Amino acid sequence: MKKDRRISAGTRVCAVIGNPVAHSLSPAVHNAAFEELGLDFVYVAFRVEDVAAAVAGMRAFENFRGMSVTIPHKTEIMKYVDGIDEADRSIGSINTVVNEQGRLIGSGTDGPGALRALADAGVEVEGRSILVLGSGGAARAIAFTLARNARPGKLSILDVDESQLGRLTADLRNGTDARVESGKLSDGSLARAMGHADVILHCTPVGMHPNEDAALVPAALFRPGQVVFDIVYTPLETKLLADARSRGLKVIPGVEMFVHQAALQFERFTGVDAPVGVMRRVVMERLKS
Amino acid sequence: MKKDRRISAGTRVCAVIGNPVAHSLSPAVHNAAFEELGLDFVYVAFRVEDVAAAVAGMRAFENFRGMSVTIPHKTEIMKYVDGIDEADRSIGSINTVVNEQGRLIGSGTDGPGALRALADAGVEVEGRSILVLGSGGAARAIAFTLARNARPGKLSILDVDESQLGRLTADLRNGTDARVESGKLSDGSLARAMGHADVILHCTPVGMHPNEDAALVPAALFRPGQVVFDIVYTPLETKLLADARSRGLKVIPGVEMFVHQAALQFERFTGVDAPVGVMRRVVMERLKS
Repeated sequence: MKKDRRISAGTRVCAVIGNPVAHSLSPAVHNAAFEELGLDFVYVAFRVEDVAAAVAGMRAFENFRGMSVTIPHKTEIMKYVDGIDEADRSIGSINTVVNEQGRLIGSGTDGPGALRALADAGVEVEGRSILVLGSGGAARAIAFTLARNARPGKLSILDVDESQLGRLTADLRNGTDARVESGKLSDGSLARAMGHADVILHCTPVGMHPNEDAALVPAALFRPGQVVFDIVYTPLETKLLADARSRGLKVIPGVEMFVHQAALQFERFTGVDAPVGVMRRVVMERLKS
Repeated sequence: MKKDRRISAGTRVCAVIGNPVAHSLSPAVHNAAFEELGLDFVYVAFRVEDVAAAVAGMRAFENFRGMSVTIPHKTEIMKYVDGIDEADRSIGSINTVVNEQGRLIGSGTDGPGALRALADAGVEVEGRSILVLGSGGAARAIAFTLARNARPGKLSILDVDESQLGRLTADLRNGTDARVESGKLSDGSLARAMGHADVILHCTPVGMHPNEDAALVPAALFRPGQVVFDIVYTPLETKLLADARSRGLKVIPGVEMFVHQAALQFERFTGVDAPVGVMRRVVMERLKS
């Protein structure tokens, strides 16, 4: 179907804002999903520096329904919306803004997206020992979401950045009732944590293109029955995942988190279930090409 | 070609802003033209009340390339752009804003669109007696453009609104070197003006849907060789045009002005010649359905 037969004066608009956004997959993914379900929405990408003005613009363009928010604006934009869930406020960043009849509601889908990816892969979190590697924005969103909503037996967090790690640990202990342990990432602490972890969530940039030969966890530390989830999705299979898979472990590639966080955004924009299969196919096509 | 294969993070965005915009044909027309030429642009419609915030938003969304501006914002928006041609400043309204590397340039295409419609129909303006009926925004844009750029022999303007007519007449005499006559519209003044007019430009709402049985000019006043241009385009053929055509006169329907003003906007957005035939076909399809 041609664009000129699809976009009308009644079409609702969504966009990703960020800087840069030139390589964003979001327009392709969301438009394919709108198309699949025959929804009168269109999704574009806007490079934005001035976040306050972008939000003012979103308010002024009354059928501008939703925004995906990406780096570097995920924290600053919280200042300009009208409502944010307590959970997202604790996390300290959001990636989604929806205009609900003139009221801009901010929320995050990174943590819930990771949780859906785990559920989709048939991985139980409740009662299990979860190891989170990293304490940056993504780690924070995921750790908070697991701690609040998934009843992990224990949440262990390791990072080289001790001050960032200290803040996340304190915030989790204050804001959730999860059992949280944390420590500076080292060969020793990693080996000890790998000794009891059931699910490993890798949330650092190690192994990301163009450093594809790197992996944070030595392959010798993997134990049978562990699940390894790497949020890095370039390359589609990181060395960490390849190593884990070669040891027979269940692995969840980062593209699953990307797809599920996008699906959750789609559902907040449209109010209908996302066609996850279509969205995944588009992401895979783009990342392979 | 599907939308999801067309819109990417590099796509430049254009939009019509107005209130209401629900019936705007502009998205259909511009998207068909982008599609025809394979340009990486997309065009949407935004309902806007707060014009200042909309312009701030346009600045913030850095690849938001151009806006079409419609009722009721064509005058107010002049306050918020960074540059306007002197000609458009005299007219007192603009309908196009283009972001030229961070600088918002406002311009009008209604007058130039009418001029192109005349040229496209093979109608000479230079040296001829032009009768403009009405002195509102469209009449003003067209009269100024003809006076400045088309060397009419004489420009006669009639309207029932004498104060609006008086302002337009004074502004034309101050701002252009055209020979301008004007007077209150009445049976007598209309009959006298029709006696010498070569080209009649109808710029009032008379005859517009749902009042299709009305026509401002009694059919008995038409003389052989006159050209009648009605800017009303709903219905596609007004009673005025049907009457003129039945007398054997050359007529130009309002849809031609709509198409050519849109084509000029397209050219300002993209820098390439507009596919006028495609744009006209889309407008005709929509107006007939």
